[in-house]
Amino acid sequence: MTSPELLRAESLPVGRTLELGTHHVTREEIIDFASQWDPQPFHVDAEAARATVFRDVIGSGLHTMAIFQRLAVLGAYRHWAIVAGRAIRDVSLTSPLRPDTTVRATVTVDSVQPHTEERALVSKTGRVLHGDEVLMTLHVDAYVLRAS
Amino acid sequence: MTSPELLRAESLPVGRTLELGTHHVTREEIIDFASQWDPQPFHVDAEAARATVFRDVIGSGLHTMAIFQRLAVLGAYRHWAIVAGRAIRDVSLTSPLRPDTTVRATVTVDSVQPHTEERALVSKTGRVLHGDEVLMTLHVDAYVLRAS
Repeated sequence: MTSPELLRAESLPVGRTLELGTHHVTREEIIDFASQWDPQPFHVDAEAARATVFRDVIGSGLHTMAIFQRLAVLGAYRHWAIVAGRAIRDVSLTSPLRPDTTVRATVTVDSVQPHTEERALVSKTGRVLHGDEVLMTLHVDAYVLRAS
Repeated sequence: MTSPELLRAESLPVGRTLELGTHHVTREEIIDFASQWDPQPFHVDAEAARATVFRDVIGSGLHTMAIFQRLAVLGAYRHWAIVAGRAIRDVSLTSPLRPDTTVRATVTVDSVQPHTEERALVSKTGRVLHGDEVLMTLHVDAYVLRAS
């Protein structure tokens, strides 16, 4: 089902925070993403956004989550024997995603708990940051294969 | 800041569930979305997905959330005086998003609480369904302007 070299639940680094790399967010990407999935004026219309408290378009909260997920898959999850996501808990959007900035992401493995004979439930905390400013924190659970 | 015809927090239908319309999910859309934002094999690689418990590619959980958000903006939020999203709580992914299905979404306004003189915090429950099967439930909070 999965390649033998993928990390099983028991091998995940509980308590460690992994750096997942960076993503450059352009104005075009913010507007493109939101035009398709979250077409609110303050995400897609620079003119309308100038009149808001943010003074410019800001990325959709979903876009910030998507950047986290992309960096997490490329930087960590593709080496893990993940079966499927189960839940996303407590997504805090603490600061806006601004055009033409480079953000970075981290993931912390909080716990690994046996779920069935085959699967464990792995809980993680993810963050997207701009410098040291946290834009988003989320807690997410996924099923990962146990060592057989 | 916002058009006078937008619904202020006090006018939102607390306790009511609104039907938000439907979205047809193609195999191509599932693979395109995940290729960009969640490139795990069971989302992007039909061959690899055949060996999983799902027997085919399934949409990213983020894709299901994005479909909800798109339908919610077009079917409800664009008529509301929303300032910004604040938090997403408790996203449950209870059933997979399958290729070539038509899903629908609903949103329930759970509560409206004054936050500042200008803003209220509006809590909502969103659902994505295929027929009567719930694929995803989420709870989301946003700031909405109060009547001035």
